[in-house]
Amino acid sequence: MSIKQRIEDLGLTLPPVAPPAANYVTAVRTGNLLFLSGNVPVTPEGEIPKGKVGADISTEEATEHARLVGLHLLAVIQEHLGDLDRAKRIVKLLGMVNAVPEFVEHSKVINGCSNLFAAVFGEKHARSAIGVGSLPFGITVEIEAIVEVD
Amino acid sequence: MSIKQRIEDLGLTLPPVAPPAANYVTAVRTGNLLFLSGNVPVTPEGEIPKGKVGADISTEEATEHARLVGLHLLAVIQEHLGDLDRAKRIVKLLGMVNAVPEFVEHSKVINGCSNLFAAVFGEKHARSAIGVGSLPFGITVEIEAIVEVD
Amino acid sequence: MSIKQRIEDLGLTLPPVAPPAANYVTAVRTGNLLFLSGNVPVTPEGEIPKGKVGADISTEEATEHARLVGLHLLAVIQEHLGDLDRAKRIVKLLGMVNAVPEFVEHSKVINGCSNLFAAVFGEKHARSAIGVGSLPFGITVEIEAIVEVD
Repeated sequence: MSIKQRIEDLGLTLPPVAPPAANYVTAVRTGNLLFLSGNVPVTPEGEIPKGKVGADISTEEATEHARLVGLHLLAVIQEHLGDLDRAKRIVKLLGMVNAVPEFVEHSKVINGCSNLFAAVFGEKHARSAIGVGSLPFGITVEIEAIVEVD
Repeated sequence: MSIKQRIEDLGLTLPPVAPPAANYVTAVRTGNLLFLSGNVPVTPEGEIPKGKVGADISTEEATEHARLVGLHLLAVIQEHLGDLDRAKRIVKLLGMVNAVPEFVEHSKVINGCSNLFAAVFGEKHARSAIGVGSLPFGITVEIEAIVEVD
Repeated sequence: MSIKQRIEDLGLTLPPVAPPAANYVTAVRTGNLLFLSGNVPVTPEGEIPKGKVGADISTEEATEHARLVGLHLLAVIQEHLGDLDRAKRIVKLLGMVNAVPEFVEHSKVINGCSNLFAAVFGEKHARSAIGVGSLPFGITVEIEAIVEVD
């Protein structure tokens, strides 16, 4: 089944691609690999959630933010490739949670993105989930991705 | 000399591969590159060491944990390729230490893994060593790797 | 226009390559990709700036440090390839700022490197900018890079 078909079946709507916040591009392709820049969550209302996970932001909220990052990553892939079905698979994610030092539920948070991608692509990816000390603009979650292109 | 032979000569025993803690796989191969997920240390007793490096955990302890991560990465490579001798070289590591903000000995810690790999593969790799604010489950060290496959 | 020519036109001087601080190499090439290790800033006087960005170190100072990391990355590329014009493009950066938890200006800081690379290569790259909890030796900024080679 095609990726576009799965997105439709899952009732997902991809957000507009947000322009990069600084002097970089959303993705660069080299050979069969597409390297995506670190993406931020954008709510359906166009807001970018901010705060420290484990203090201002709950694990459940951050998990939803990771899902929003995933939808934005899909939008970037679609924009870059023209057609989402040219994306063969997600190779690897680096999921970064803007958490307090005592936070331990990174795996649950980044699953917000991984569960989405597993449903859309029909297979799992490699990944690292970590807690960072701070993130640009105080955003809660940032995720970068490597995608294999057909 | 083969990698398997070096592991035998060094008297190393690879641990069983721990199942991923969330919705991802241990590694994805694309072309000649194998991308490994962030790996955690597992002691010979099957325990996963937790704590803040520079506070609860000493540099020496964390260095040993990084070595344990290295052994687990080797086990994942073996599982994925079937034969460790199909791994041509370690391209790059990202070594992440769950440290207090004042910690400065990341290079020593990640050498626990790099020294192992230099001995096993007979050559050095590229790498970044950083201190993260927190890690899943409170683990002390997490390392991801890119491997070139023959 | 060639990369060497742009570096000359911009009046840039590449620093000597600093030897790795631990058991790794400055870069590993696999196929058409060159993976560079995490690089540190080195001042023209040969000093390595240390401190917490957002406390001891201002955003402006850290931005200049990121530019110095960029010059050092260029020196590593030149050393590895022999000729900078064999570097086709910067694929992706991971820019890490040793910041206090409240810091939010990572994008400005890492632009110190991205602006340099955009000027030298004539096009933009993918990137992630994050705040880490600590860095080796207490350095202010560390940046790793993936470069496409001709």
